Amino acid sequence: MSSPEASIHVLMTDLGARAREASRAMARAGTAEKNRALLELAGVLRAQRESLQQANRVDVDAARQAGLEPAFVDRLQLGDKVLEQMAASCEQVAALPDPIGEMTDLRRRPSGITVGRMRVPLGVFGMIFESRPNVTIEAASLAIKSGNAVILRGGSEAIHSNRALAQCVGRALEQAGLPVDAVQLVPVTDRAAVGELITMPRFVDVIIPRGGKGLIERISAEARVPVIKHLDGNCHVYVDDDVDLDMAVSVTDNAKTQRYSPCNAAESLLVARASAHAFLPRIGAVFAAKGVEMRCCAHSRALLEPVPGAAPLLRDATEQDWDTEYLAPIISIKVVDGVDAAIAHINRHGSQHTDTILTSNHQHAMRFLREVDSAAVMINASTRFSDGFEFGLGAEIGISTDKFHARGPVGLEGLTSQKWVVLGDGQLRR
Amino acid sequence: MSSPEASIHVLMTDLGARAREASRAMARAGTAEKNRALLELAGVLRAQRESLQQANRVDVDAARQAGLEPAFVDRLQLGDKVLEQMAASCEQVAALPDPIGEMTDLRRRPSGITVGRMRVPLGVFGMIFESRPNVTIEAASLAIKSGNAVILRGGSEAIHSNRALAQCVGRALEQAGLPVDAVQLVPVTDRAAVGELITMPRFVDVIIPRGGKGLIERISAEARVPVIKHLDGNCHVYVDDDVDLDMAVSVTDNAKTQRYSPCNAAESLLVARASAHAFLPRIGAVFAAKGVEMRCCAHSRALLEPVPGAAPLLRDATEQDWDTEYLAPIISIKVVDGVDAAIAHINRHGSQHTDTILTSNHQHAMRFLREVDSAAVMINASTRFSDGFEFGLGAEIGISTDKFHARGPVGLEGLTSQKWVVLGDGQLRR
Repeated sequence: MSSPEASIHVLMTDLGARAREASRAMARAGTAEKNRALLELAGVLRAQRESLQQANRVDVDAARQAGLEPAFVDRLQLGDKVLEQMAASCEQVAALPDPIGEMTDLRRRPSGITVGRMRVPLGVFGMIFESRPNVTIEAASLAIKSGNAVILRGGSEAIHSNRALAQCVGRALEQAGLPVDAVQLVPVTDRAAVGELITMPRFVDVIIPRGGKGLIERISAEARVPVIKHLDGNCHVYVDDDVDLDMAVSVTDNAKTQRYSPCNAAESLLVARASAHAFLPRIGAVFAAKGVEMRCCAHSRALLEPVPGAAPLLRDATEQDWDTEYLAPIISIKVVDGVDAAIAHINRHGSQHTDTILTSNHQHAMRFLREVDSAAVMINASTRFSDGFEFGLGAEIGISTDKFHARGPVGLEGLTSQKWVVLGDGQLRR
Repeated sequence: MSSPEASIHVLMTDLGARAREASRAMARAGTAEKNRALLELAGVLRAQRESLQQANRVDVDAARQAGLEPAFVDRLQLGDKVLEQMAASCEQVAALPDPIGEMTDLRRRPSGITVGRMRVPLGVFGMIFESRPNVTIEAASLAIKSGNAVILRGGSEAIHSNRALAQCVGRALEQAGLPVDAVQLVPVTDRAAVGELITMPRFVDVIIPRGGKGLIERISAEARVPVIKHLDGNCHVYVDDDVDLDMAVSVTDNAKTQRYSPCNAAESLLVARASAHAFLPRIGAVFAAKGVEMRCCAHSRALLEPVPGAAPLLRDATEQDWDTEYLAPIISIKVVDGVDAAIAHINRHGSQHTDTILTSNHQHAMRFLREVDSAAVMINASTRFSDGFEFGLGAEIGISTDKFHARGPVGLEGLTSQKWVVLGDGQLRR
């Protein structure tokens, strides 16, 4: 029992047992204590800026020496601005309403008992993430507010930064009289630790992975506990046959080009046959000016060829294009017969993330809303709005492309459950 | 590719693809069509009584010849009364409100978009059950009402009955203009079919097993899709130090003895030290009269020994007793210091199903309600109330002892999800 696997097992079991124990105290904690911990954490982050940046420098230097990409090194860095944002976000989470303990739907039943529901924490969640060390503070602050315990497993490249940040969290918890074990960082970088974390249903209630599709697929395949997972964001804009063309051009432009890398950016444009002639040349001119590559069906290509500057950016779409999340200045474009064909295409090729219809037709709008089977379905709005902050959640721990439990942007509520409560005065079942 | 496993794979993939396809039409179906299918089904079940009983006789005869237990054969039988109950339950489900399409929480955001949620079906669920053929109709009717498709896998002993019932469902769906594939029965009894059913995330969104703990544990371990599962019901009654003794005796009696086999029957009695002297002899007399075996801690045993008729029913409890669901005229009994010890004992030994406190102390009642981490937590009411019908769900597809998605009794809402809807008039993300 002294193999590395065995000792990782012992380590993770211990972490898990302590998290479960701490989760009970967190579930009992009052709003004032939880908010105090969050405000203390903001203070500690500001006070410890220099020592945090010192720890961070070890990771950043190692990443540079290892020849990692500049964008990666950039995400790793805890500059003054990033640290201040982290502190401010703790204050914002403190200002959110406390979801825990709320009782709803209380109803008197014929038997005389009163039945309702009480919102309670899930218990313990495991957060697995890649390079960004700010996820340590995001996950910690949401765990504290929602009365859960969390086990954090960050990328090995950020281990020194994450350790220093986790120490700050521990100090804040202590100062607020909450258990330090409510937020624990897996202290080792062995891969086997992830394998343990996702297969301890006794200690961990749900896993939230953040990172590339490969990581998330692997975790989902191997986990023995529920996973709140976000895979592709193959988001569609459908321009209907009856539509305000100015609005359609500006929303389509915004959905595709406002930023290319977020998961809620549009990747595919469907245009009703009746609108194609008037709409495609206009949006084609916008895309041409911005250098957006257009992967077209034959019909859309024919309409886009004459657009000045467009020709070098046009490609013939393959079947695979309809299924692809580019996260880049590329969009697939298809002319469809109308709303029925658009809904069918999206339900077949989409990733159940976010899709929007641009239309003036009420019946089409409502059918699209009801029948498109995605986490977020929109009428006359940019897919880029699909976001916890824009939706008013106040915080976002992730986005779920599943239907079970939480769907779409996941805020504090996704880290909670509802139990049944029954208030009686001696009722018996007959 | 002509091995039995390969052909089962082909069969199940075909079933899954057809269920997924049918689920889209079910999601679009209106309340009137769905209710019509349910009322047609009630009619078909009554009209086909004789042919259903003929098919059922094949299963019953085979079960008797195989020497299966009388209780098993009893559950298998489709007598006149059982069939009438099945038909009536379809009418009851038709009378329930349709959860699908309801939009809630619509709020205007600072960006100008209106954000809310719409209740939608989960898609396809798989129902795996043992002997009772009436589950075929229960699951079918709840699938129809909630706009889902279902794949049913019943016990091999009921295959002729289930096939005949599934035919009735198909006829009702057809008459209502809904897709026949919305309710499909796995037509073969091979075990490999279950293995396929629980590992097709492309086609199946959630699995609901009903049956013994062994079956449910095996399915949970092997499933690659979420499982709404119900394991133990180790339910507790805690009698507090400040309590109306008459009420405590009658509720404890009801929780334990009203029926022994349901999962919401009490299995363990905790008594506050201050109440033990007055309470235990009284409940001991009730249990003695009803022949309930009492597995006691030393303190409770000492108080129960003098109760007339109790002595032959007293045993010393072992550690294992605190974790055991007896489903029989047996109860474990422990004297505890007070509400803190009771909560700690329940959170350690309970099965997170249903637990009740009997008390006159408001602070203790509220602490118990908040801190006991179970699906249903009660004050001054019998654990036997933990039931979808008693809670007002109108129907029950199962009971969940998990916290994720659905907790406790699961009605139509547990078969649904909420998607985000965004209503705009051309808003752009800045």
